[in-house]
Amino acid sequence: MKRLIIDSDTGSDDAVALVMALKYPDTKVEAITVGFGNVPMEQGVQNAIYTVELCGADVPVYAGLDRPLIREGRTGQYVHGEDGMGDIGLPLSGKKPAPGHAVDVLIDTINRYAGDITLVTLGPLMNVAVALLRDPSIAHKVNDCVIMGGVGYGYGNVTPVAEYNIWADPEAAQIVFQSGMPLTMVGIDVNNKSAVFTEADSAALRGIGTPLAEFCVDIQAKLINYVSERTGIRSFSLPDPITMGVALDPFMATEVKNLFVNVELGDGYTRGQTVVDHLHVTGKAPNTKVVLDASREGFITMLHNAVR
Amino acid sequence: MKRLIIDSDTGSDDAVALVMALKYPDTKVEAITVGFGNVPMEQGVQNAIYTVELCGADVPVYAGLDRPLIREGRTGQYVHGEDGMGDIGLPLSGKKPAPGHAVDVLIDTINRYAGDITLVTLGPLMNVAVALLRDPSIAHKVNDCVIMGGVGYGYGNVTPVAEYNIWADPEAAQIVFQSGMPLTMVGIDVNNKSAVFTEADSAALRGIGTPLAEFCVDIQAKLINYVSERTGIRSFSLPDPITMGVALDPFMATEVKNLFVNVELGDGYTRGQTVVDHLHVTGKAPNTKVVLDASREGFITMLHNAVR
Amino acid sequence: MKRLIIDSDTGSDDAVALVMALKYPDTKVEAITVGFGNVPMEQGVQNAIYTVELCGADVPVYAGLDRPLIREGRTGQYVHGEDGMGDIGLPLSGKKPAPGHAVDVLIDTINRYAGDITLVTLGPLMNVAVALLRDPSIAHKVNDCVIMGGVGYGYGNVTPVAEYNIWADPEAAQIVFQSGMPLTMVGIDVNNKSAVFTEADSAALRGIGTPLAEFCVDIQAKLINYVSERTGIRSFSLPDPITMGVALDPFMATEVKNLFVNVELGDGYTRGQTVVDHLHVTGKAPNTKVVLDASREGFITMLHNAVR
Amino acid sequence: MKRLIIDSDTGSDDAVALVMALKYPDTKVEAITVGFGNVPMEQGVQNAIYTVELCGADVPVYAGLDRPLIREGRTGQYVHGEDGMGDIGLPLSGKKPAPGHAVDVLIDTINRYAGDITLVTLGPLMNVAVALLRDPSIAHKVNDCVIMGGVGYGYGNVTPVAEYNIWADPEAAQIVFQSGMPLTMVGIDVNNKSAVFTEADSAALRGIGTPLAEFCVDIQAKLINYVSERTGIRSFSLPDPITMGVALDPFMATEVKNLFVNVELGDGYTRGQTVVDHLHVTGKAPNTKVVLDASREGFITMLHNAVR
Repeated sequence: MKRLIIDSDTGSDDAVALVMALKYPDTKVEAITVGFGNVPMEQGVQNAIYTVELCGADVPVYAGLDRPLIREGRTGQYVHGEDGMGDIGLPLSGKKPAPGHAVDVLIDTINRYAGDITLVTLGPLMNVAVALLRDPSIAHKVNDCVIMGGVGYGYGNVTPVAEYNIWADPEAAQIVFQSGMPLTMVGIDVNNKSAVFTEADSAALRGIGTPLAEFCVDIQAKLINYVSERTGIRSFSLPDPITMGVALDPFMATEVKNLFVNVELGDGYTRGQTVVDHLHVTGKAPNTKVVLDASREGFITMLHNAVR
Repeated sequence: MKRLIIDSDTGSDDAVALVMALKYPDTKVEAITVGFGNVPMEQGVQNAIYTVELCGADVPVYAGLDRPLIREGRTGQYVHGEDGMGDIGLPLSGKKPAPGHAVDVLIDTINRYAGDITLVTLGPLMNVAVALLRDPSIAHKVNDCVIMGGVGYGYGNVTPVAEYNIWADPEAAQIVFQSGMPLTMVGIDVNNKSAVFTEADSAALRGIGTPLAEFCVDIQAKLINYVSERTGIRSFSLPDPITMGVALDPFMATEVKNLFVNVELGDGYTRGQTVVDHLHVTGKAPNTKVVLDASREGFITMLHNAVR
Repeated sequence: MKRLIIDSDTGSDDAVALVMALKYPDTKVEAITVGFGNVPMEQGVQNAIYTVELCGADVPVYAGLDRPLIREGRTGQYVHGEDGMGDIGLPLSGKKPAPGHAVDVLIDTINRYAGDITLVTLGPLMNVAVALLRDPSIAHKVNDCVIMGGVGYGYGNVTPVAEYNIWADPEAAQIVFQSGMPLTMVGIDVNNKSAVFTEADSAALRGIGTPLAEFCVDIQAKLINYVSERTGIRSFSLPDPITMGVALDPFMATEVKNLFVNVELGDGYTRGQTVVDHLHVTGKAPNTKVVLDASREGFITMLHNAVR
Repeated sequence: MKRLIIDSDTGSDDAVALVMALKYPDTKVEAITVGFGNVPMEQGVQNAIYTVELCGADVPVYAGLDRPLIREGRTGQYVHGEDGMGDIGLPLSGKKPAPGHAVDVLIDTINRYAGDITLVTLGPLMNVAVALLRDPSIAHKVNDCVIMGGVGYGYGNVTPVAEYNIWADPEAAQIVFQSGMPLTMVGIDVNNKSAVFTEADSAALRGIGTPLAEFCVDIQAKLINYVSERTGIRSFSLPDPITMGVALDPFMATEVKNLFVNVELGDGYTRGQTVVDHLHVTGKAPNTKVVLDASREGFITMLHNAVR
């Protein structure tokens, strides 16, 4: 049995990733910890609890940090909706998170199941970073930390070179990347290659007809509008779910390189960039398995199975 | 009765500050938390325990972070000695810190005595910063946080503009300065004005003849050599003790301005500078009581009383 | 006879400095070169020509760079008026600069009178920087370069730590400071100590009754309003004239230290700061005579003599 | 007839590019200007003169800046040899450059043939940057400026993200990229795709048997060793010649996008990166035609023709 902890800034694509994990065979999600990102942390907690309940699962959801470590933050509500779940009228308020702070839960759970935890991060890395600052030993006690974030090879989505999750809290990301924790990074480039949903893809998914299938598509409403306004195409992509796919089944990653990754912390044009040393010019030892491609077919199959 | 928590990177001037606090009337030191700075954290723990025992006090000493939040650190052992206590042969090993992590102790103690704690920081601010990240509410529960660090007006000591404690972990410092916690900053400039000990001052202190008097002078051996080699003068200064003086008796601060302070985080010539807005040109509300002068006489008297 | 070249962003205090130089005995101003700063370069040219003509002098005024080397610029028109001369209705348009570019004139004139030129800079340093890039040999051919700019010890005027002339083009300033040219820096702190004019000082100056006396006071109209709105006091100060005083009579500088100065180029809170190594902690050889105090009496006398 | 100015830091691949230009039909090289880069400027002048003479051409070679605008420079002699031409014993000293400074020649020649000059840059951009600072109008008088530099899409060669010519003087590069000059950028990625020479390619070129053919291969000796030591493969690549190919025949560029390019100037991990806004997330108007692919066949043919 695989044990997961999922750290999430639960918006509309995180929710789909949660569904995938909660429905995956032989897998136990020990905890969902929530931080700041797509939506304010408190909203992310509501969204995670709603998703867990919709799946009929019994997984505690914990509140964590509500802002980046050092700089002011910016949510992704202009992409995911005010409630982060497409603003389609879901009842996303009034629930209480489980007692305990996300940082403590990360530390305690990783220590309890030392060597037996896969940590999956779907948002900015503030909760994991503070857990590492408070207990650096956890770096060596997780089996793997699978990160949705950064750019392995190619373009960013908030700046020409930076992806949102890393850009939103680069200092937190740098703490994680330099911690010694075994890392698998699924960058936004992998999403762009393997996790884009056309209208046909979307219809095929929703057409499965279960409440989960409809949920996974309907909460993308705002994201579809956002993409459509900018590109004229009614598509969306699912970076967190493709990352979850790699976490649940590492064979889904079809191209992986072991490389050194730094995070740019300066105030210039490249803040929040993952600086990936593809050609080994820094002389630094690799610290990250950088996923450069993933199986679209495997991902679609896994997602369809999850909502069925 | 005044309740203190002292966060320290216990080297030779920290030790004198601890003596002052432990011997001050009507004052309870609830905990001493130790981080990285003058010496590696583990050595600082030994130095703090030794000092507490020499004072015949019963105060727990807790281990905290052993490195800065993000960058590699550099100790001040070239100034304070390998053991941070002047390398005069004191038995500074083998003791165990109290059970519990400095960060947790900061959070728990401040919450337990909310509104009734004066926090005094004598080293880089990593322990306090991580406590604030994990529980931001403590910012509003301390009575005051008195910081030895930065430059209020004048020069730095590690770079032309930066003082060691802030320079050694600027990101931690910035978290503390922007946390909303009530802060009193005693910069290295105050030390330079009011806490320099000439050979005569030193002889007067040691001449008191008690073991504590001799301890407070003798552990400055390396510092005296360091200053002497650079300036030709056998003097030393006591930045942490003058700060402790202000914490124990705020009237010791003879010039104080309420100002906005930022910490420079860039990689250029000014990394770790406390940027103090004396002329209110940023338009930002003050976040720090910046001490600009302190009573040398008051300080000497307090120190003599402590070791008597 | 002393030969001067004056590089200026001619606003209301530059104009007073020009009057001082043009009226000083045994002094020849070979050229006035104008760059971007207090006002757009083209306006500065007009202001310089007007001032030269008012003095009955015959000194060519040359147009130079109209923007900083790399970043966008910001003028000081909110301080000095739209025309930079207090907006008092002077006819400040329609004149032609002398043929030739300021950069070429700097290079040619310094080469022609090698060893015999004092360069005085009253604005951001773009013209001098480009001249040095094009002909680095001129660094060793000026007798002295007296700079109004930076902070020797104390506060900035546009940020807590930066003075306008350096802040407006830090890259240009760094080129000049690291060029090997003999430099004398008169920071805004010297102005604040020795060149503030109260209403009484102002009345005494204007009371001399000559057209030049009235001109020197009347063009400060906007500056007086600006200061008054912020402080409630109808005063102004004359940073460029006190600098010109030092250039014309070096004995006017009453405290001078030979120190290493760097300019901070990062994008953080300290951009444009002159980082002055007062305590020699960088180990770098001094590159600048930093003026830390100047004679107020000497300055007032020199100014009164100039307008008489 | 096409008029070129070539700005070069003449090392072993620049020399091949010079051969291509000097031998190309219906093309006149008006001037070769030399700056700092692969080798010290003075050595680059010797190398350019030697190459011109070997081609039997009559083109003046001008000395320019001998260091980057602001920071200390680092040559590429560890790659190209002490003399930059493979250290194969060529007589590369003792010649005099043409009278005049590279910056003046750039300005004068571009003004003389306004609208009729293609500027080709093969090294760091200090000469062009200073020319633009001194006379910004030349930006609008060149037909095109074809730059060997930066990364259009992919990896750097001195850092994970930066290419040597831009990294060696980022401030100069930023001045050029933001100048309004029409720019065509051929990044190191284009070289990596289309200008790598295997042993067979190299033999085919040298086998042409002319002195120029032998010269073009033999001066790569050090570069071949450098690559071989790091990769085990005796190959080399020709970034400057593929760029010259695009300049001489724009149809050689097989994939070109009109994009906004910024240069990172910070001191962090990404200094000197060309930040290319492929997805138009900055909202800035394109300033550069970024070449993303070029015809290897066309390039080889052009090179073979040149040395025949």
